[in-house]
Amino acid sequence: MVDLTLTHKEISELSALMASGQVSAREIVAAFVSNLELHNATTNAFIAADAERALARASTLDALRGTGKTMGVLSGIPLAVKDNYLTLDFPTTAGSRVYDANPPKSDARAVALLREAGAIVLGKTNMHEWAYGATNKISAKGPTRNPWNTQHITGGSSGGSAAALAARIVPAALGSDTGGSIRIPSSGCGVCGIKPSYDFVSREGVLPLSWSLDAVGPMATSARDLRILLSAMIDGAGLGFNGDTTRIPAAKRKMRLGIPVGQGFELADDVRSAFETAQKVFAELGAEIVPVEISEMMEGFAAWKTILHSEATAFHAKFLSERPNEYADTVRIQLEAGRCITAADYLNAQQYRRGFNHKLDLAMTGYDAFIYPTLPVTAPMLDEEALHFEGVTVSAQDSMTYVAWFANLAGLPALSIPCGFGKQGLPIGLMLMGRFGTDFDLLGLGELFQTATDWHRRVPALASHSSS
Amino acid sequence: MVDLTLTHKEISELSALMASGQVSAREIVAAFVSNLELHNATTNAFIAADAERALARASTLDALRGTGKTMGVLSGIPLAVKDNYLTLDFPTTAGSRVYDANPPKSDARAVALLREAGAIVLGKTNMHEWAYGATNKISAKGPTRNPWNTQHITGGSSGGSAAALAARIVPAALGSDTGGSIRIPSSGCGVCGIKPSYDFVSREGVLPLSWSLDAVGPMATSARDLRILLSAMIDGAGLGFNGDTTRIPAAKRKMRLGIPVGQGFELADDVRSAFETAQKVFAELGAEIVPVEISEMMEGFAAWKTILHSEATAFHAKFLSERPNEYADTVRIQLEAGRCITAADYLNAQQYRRGFNHKLDLAMTGYDAFIYPTLPVTAPMLDEEALHFEGVTVSAQDSMTYVAWFANLAGLPALSIPCGFGKQGLPIGLMLMGRFGTDFDLLGLGELFQTATDWHRRVPALASHSSS
Repeated sequence: MVDLTLTHKEISELSALMASGQVSAREIVAAFVSNLELHNATTNAFIAADAERALARASTLDALRGTGKTMGVLSGIPLAVKDNYLTLDFPTTAGSRVYDANPPKSDARAVALLREAGAIVLGKTNMHEWAYGATNKISAKGPTRNPWNTQHITGGSSGGSAAALAARIVPAALGSDTGGSIRIPSSGCGVCGIKPSYDFVSREGVLPLSWSLDAVGPMATSARDLRILLSAMIDGAGLGFNGDTTRIPAAKRKMRLGIPVGQGFELADDVRSAFETAQKVFAELGAEIVPVEISEMMEGFAAWKTILHSEATAFHAKFLSERPNEYADTVRIQLEAGRCITAADYLNAQQYRRGFNHKLDLAMTGYDAFIYPTLPVTAPMLDEEALHFEGVTVSAQDSMTYVAWFANLAGLPALSIPCGFGKQGLPIGLMLMGRFGTDFDLLGLGELFQTATDWHRRVPALASHSSS
Repeated sequence: MVDLTLTHKEISELSALMASGQVSAREIVAAFVSNLELHNATTNAFIAADAERALARASTLDALRGTGKTMGVLSGIPLAVKDNYLTLDFPTTAGSRVYDANPPKSDARAVALLREAGAIVLGKTNMHEWAYGATNKISAKGPTRNPWNTQHITGGSSGGSAAALAARIVPAALGSDTGGSIRIPSSGCGVCGIKPSYDFVSREGVLPLSWSLDAVGPMATSARDLRILLSAMIDGAGLGFNGDTTRIPAAKRKMRLGIPVGQGFELADDVRSAFETAQKVFAELGAEIVPVEISEMMEGFAAWKTILHSEATAFHAKFLSERPNEYADTVRIQLEAGRCITAADYLNAQQYRRGFNHKLDLAMTGYDAFIYPTLPVTAPMLDEEALHFEGVTVSAQDSMTYVAWFANLAGLPALSIPCGFGKQGLPIGLMLMGRFGTDFDLLGLGELFQTATDWHRRVPALASHSSS
């Protein structure tokens, strides 16, 4: 008898149930495994999964707990890992037919840290091939489908992790983010994700897309759970972080939030409406909200693309020359085009980046965060090629990275949390971006927002069972 | 009455004479100014000089000393500054017709530090245009001529500083080094120079050639003087250095020196002979000398060139598009060719560099230094295009950077000191390269060598007057 209501709970709630002896790890894993069986074929969220091994690991942890041993903070919590993290017990494909350096010598550092804390890896999630795209339509495993409406994309490239969370197949997942790839599908699927400050979480053992833009981070169903996961993922080997992971939420003082305005900040009507509601929530929580002009979004986007394509092409040079036909067409074409970028263009884009980031940092001074919708639209249909909103027309790909990229160019922490639903009943996400190193302050703002709202607790129809 | 014997003295000797009151700063500057008047036209060492201002500054310092004020360690010492360092009181041209952003807001950081220590800038020295070449034949001011034989080049790109030292127009000078540009002309002109560890001396205010390879450093007539100058050039703003500038010379313990061997280490006969003598000197001083196989010199050289041309082209992009015809042909052609290097090539060269440097560091473990001739040949004739030695034929340009580049690729400290004379009576230099951060240990080895040899005290015929 499986209790599917367990799959609607947060990590902290599940941990409390295990600690009090009301529920075993095996019962928890069994509930999520039921959802895996019910919803994986529909969503195509996983590239690989191993329910038996997860259940066996849960039993081992239950036995350990029975001996009175102190358990890790994630003991018994099922975890989905994006398929560009190296893992000892699952092959890694990066959603492609190209990568075959399996098995690796060790788990990716972030996976190893979460396993040490007791997390149980249920499987590897579907992703945009090599993370080189933000729709999750392109994968050797086939497209990932949005649990809220399977005719729609999830957004990507961590779309499998987002779909697995939205379908309540796991309460915790890992993603990676080079131009929004954690936040975009989090927004598209109505879950939560944070791209940490650059280098706060080790990228060791995660296949790169563009190493000067890449960040790895957690995804979950609440900001509170993200705090638990991110705290466990940061280790002494990381470059930046030496702060407190449990900062006092911003509620204790006057908040000041900026809203970026200017060219490049266009929105669809339903998204604008949800954003206005989100601003009201923050205003009621005591925030002062101030528009801040941000210029050069077009130039910054061009610099981001130059850096992205240059570094991706450099990493793929060998694979591309040896096995070009094993790439998806769209990915191969991007890599081939990337060969035409000159060294001087790349270096000047990196120089431009310094100035852009400096001006952005000055603009953000005095603000707890900038807030803005993660996406200008809700998740497009699988076959939708062009999107129109507020006078602009962009490809589905470019609509996904529309504003998300600039946290990567600047190396800043950025969070996406649910803030409503659009015309078609699809989720809308709110992005909170902070100055360098304010990751846990941002999570504090997210937690505060989630004390006053319940969008993050909504589940799509396919996962809305109350018991089985 | 000017005492030209003063110009044959080292900084420490001149400082002692001033401290004891035997000689004034003005008398010292006047002696060097005499050599400026005698030898600058012959050598073309300076692009700009101001004897009157230097003499006036010396008088000011003499007056200050008369009041009993504590004087800086370089008080009254004439200094020649390579013309790619920004200076408030002289225009900066980088040996070109292109650069015109004068006057700057401040002195280059290294110049400011030396002035604070009391050094008197006599003028700006000739250099290979934009430092983009190692012969010093190409400059808007015309070629620099070797004081040992004015039909020969100095080597470059800091050839003006080396010629000024060899002609005893100054006892101290500044250079910059991207592939040997401090050490090459030091070797060619029989003086001493050190390329410090990467980032040990601030490059602020020095026009770049290739920022990930560039280093700025001092040149003088002895290793002891280099220690005085380098100690004064390092400040808290530098990234790396937090060590002792007065390490115990290596003589106090057993020395172990490596000699790199393999493809890429060919030498002309007269240079090999001088190198063997230098090894005997070290052996008599107690050193154990061991051959160490170094491979991939061709691949490393290719990576160095890719990085050099990419960064130079990125820096010059704007000048090159606006004022292409103001560059010397050879420099413009290199910059235009640099536009063809792809971003992927550049990034893969930087990746290759990491592996190369790691292997080199392992090879150097357990050695106080690697020693090798700075140049495989003595300074070529001005019109010599190709050089032949030990079965290889290379251009004059490539003969200059032949082994010097690899200290730049690896960011390692490297010193050049005189170690003899070749068939044509031209100086030969010995390079000592150490592991990262061992700059002052290398200088200790150089000082030890110079206690047993006097090549560094030899002066060319044109400067061999005993008095005037």
